[in-house]
Amino acid sequence: MTVTGIIAEYNPFHNGHAYQMEQARKMTGADYLVIVMSGDYVQRGTPAIIEKHLRAKMALNCGADLVLELPVRYATSSARDFAKGAVSILNDLGVVDYLCFGSEHGSISPFLEIADIVNKEPNCYKTILKEEQKKGCSYPAAHQKALQRAYAFTYPNRESDLSTEFLCAPNNILGIEYIRALKELNSSIIPCTVHRTSNNYHSIETDSKYASATAIRRLLLEKKSKHLKDLVPHNTLTDLMDCLKNNSFMTEDDYSLLLKYSLLQHTADQLTSYLDFPKSLANRAVGSLSDFQSFSQFSALLKTRDITRTRINRSLLHAILNIDQREHTPSFLRMLGFRRDAVPLLTAIKKSSRRPLVGKLADSPLETYYEDLFASNLYHSVAAIKSCQATCDERSIPLVIINS
Amino acid sequence: MTVTGIIAEYNPFHNGHAYQMEQARKMTGADYLVIVMSGDYVQRGTPAIIEKHLRAKMALNCGADLVLELPVRYATSSARDFAKGAVSILNDLGVVDYLCFGSEHGSISPFLEIADIVNKEPNCYKTILKEEQKKGCSYPAAHQKALQRAYAFTYPNRESDLSTEFLCAPNNILGIEYIRALKELNSSIIPCTVHRTSNNYHSIETDSKYASATAIRRLLLEKKSKHLKDLVPHNTLTDLMDCLKNNSFMTEDDYSLLLKYSLLQHTADQLTSYLDFPKSLANRAVGSLSDFQSFSQFSALLKTRDITRTRINRSLLHAILNIDQREHTPSFLRMLGFRRDAVPLLTAIKKSSRRPLVGKLADSPLETYYEDLFASNLYHSVAAIKSCQATCDERSIPLVIINS
Repeated sequence: MTVTGIIAEYNPFHNGHAYQMEQARKMTGADYLVIVMSGDYVQRGTPAIIEKHLRAKMALNCGADLVLELPVRYATSSARDFAKGAVSILNDLGVVDYLCFGSEHGSISPFLEIADIVNKEPNCYKTILKEEQKKGCSYPAAHQKALQRAYAFTYPNRESDLSTEFLCAPNNILGIEYIRALKELNSSIIPCTVHRTSNNYHSIETDSKYASATAIRRLLLEKKSKHLKDLVPHNTLTDLMDCLKNNSFMTEDDYSLLLKYSLLQHTADQLTSYLDFPKSLANRAVGSLSDFQSFSQFSALLKTRDITRTRINRSLLHAILNIDQREHTPSFLRMLGFRRDAVPLLTAIKKSSRRPLVGKLADSPLETYYEDLFASNLYHSVAAIKSCQATCDERSIPLVIINS
Repeated sequence: MTVTGIIAEYNPFHNGHAYQMEQARKMTGADYLVIVMSGDYVQRGTPAIIEKHLRAKMALNCGADLVLELPVRYATSSARDFAKGAVSILNDLGVVDYLCFGSEHGSISPFLEIADIVNKEPNCYKTILKEEQKKGCSYPAAHQKALQRAYAFTYPNRESDLSTEFLCAPNNILGIEYIRALKELNSSIIPCTVHRTSNNYHSIETDSKYASATAIRRLLLEKKSKHLKDLVPHNTLTDLMDCLKNNSFMTEDDYSLLLKYSLLQHTADQLTSYLDFPKSLANRAVGSLSDFQSFSQFSALLKTRDITRTRINRSLLHAILNIDQREHTPSFLRMLGFRRDAVPLLTAIKKSSRRPLVGKLADSPLETYYEDLFASNLYHSVAAIKSCQATCDERSIPLVIINS
């Protein structure tokens, strides 16, 4: 049995994701594709535009065999912790052979080389990292410069391979982190990459079959649904149109009042107790509170040269969701859904997994899952009040099971 | 100088309130009327329909000389604590001669007699109070039965004076509590009462010049503004119409998401740490959370025979506003506004007051005012996000000063 893992957000699911799954299956000869997917909150530091069970359903309908939830603290972390959390789930399953990620490059070797440099942190890397941060560079920018210098030093004839473009591409950044995490875990999972065919990650173009998730989110939020049918798989379209009809797409601005409420209750010092909430940002947040209008406006207001917008969003979201710095890892792996013909995969996982696989939360020990439960029940609450519908309780949502 | 105090909510201000001020001035020969008014939250356990500075302005335009804020923990308390908080402010001023309250009865003597019984708690009162509560009666209902029996015992020929109607009328209940509080403080302030001319407190009739605040709130929330001009003083109408235009009337359902967020973060035990939050209610609140739809729907859902709706609202509001059981009394008296020709009154208060009178929060020691500041800034936040306008900071709102 060959099993290939994919780490994803599917925010929302589109043609590019379906293509990646298809290519991953071909490239690795996989019998099964296991997806580790962000739950109700994503790495941009915002709620996911659609709740996770529906996103899992879309993935299962388009080629996935099993979808597992990435706990909220990893899903809303830096690329490094996002990757660590997700890779550790794939590794804990004990059955995964390959980890396949989309990249703007398409060849695995530079990823392996770069991950090696970052994990070893040679002196020239460390020195430049410090220098650039002192100059006021954000961590990602400083990291990138330091990496380029160290790469040129290690591979003197190939320094042009590591362009700024390469290191800025979000999928490449994540790819490097996946490989670092695999190395740190001494995992036997083999990394490989599928070349992303078109359109940049952040591009807002929608004139081909492949548009970025950013572009599709924009279409959805602006209710421009007519282009949609060319950009997402046919069998996800009905679900998307239902969401559109029910006004149930979620954005960070649906959390504006909760953010204000949370900030009003905290001193700058208290804010720094949340995950990834730097002191300078906490001071600015408390100091600018009287200019607060909405989540997105406030996040933009807090932006400076040395911190990214997504980092700010994540910090603010952590304060709303009470995600603090203590490590909380659920004692089990949460299944969001599977295809019925993937039962042999589930049987194999049951034998090999380092953490039990759980489908029904009601039967599970929830002590270690509290953080995720709160975050998701809050997501349901915001959605329900927004769309004037009844709230569902996370524990009562059934597992998505797709008949083949 | 004769000074008369009035305790009020003005939620919103209407003809009955103007009439009460006029009568109070006549009855006591007052040179000045001092109002102690609920701030942004009221005794029904909800946000005030209009923010406090505008309500203060309306009162000043219609006969008041000085408006002081009743701190939020008293404004959202039982009749007893509401009365205690408000009376202690009037008493601390050191210049108030009379306390005048509207009542459904109109004569002061039964109030004095009843307050005397309640303060002394004779055995027959205590026994019946206990018995009725054991039977599942709410405290107000049990208190009322016990009081009637004790009154009949003390004034054997006049037991019919103390009808159930008398004891159920909200203004009478408050009147009794004002007098109890005056007695407890050994205050020299003399209580007197103005007879309310028409329409019950909770009546929704709007066919005379005097409608209840409940009826007027309903008209405002349903945007039926055409009857309004007969029910409120002429010079408050423009302000009310502005609020109507800006969609800035507030109800407890504007706090639905905040309530859900707060409840999701608490165990039943933790909820009981808030002011007036009984254990049985806390258990029901946590146990019914999956049926939550809105503040008002949830409050109705939690209703049982032994607790009133306003009590439930107040408990829920205390959880949102972080109002706990510890006594927090601001070290100063907060002025919301005054008439310019009341300067001699301010001078007299400056000499006699037991707590300093503060107009500008920015210049005041806010350590003891934290609870009120949070509650009001939250009110402004909810209002701003609801009406898509900029939030104001409570500390920057200027004192209302009315030229004569």
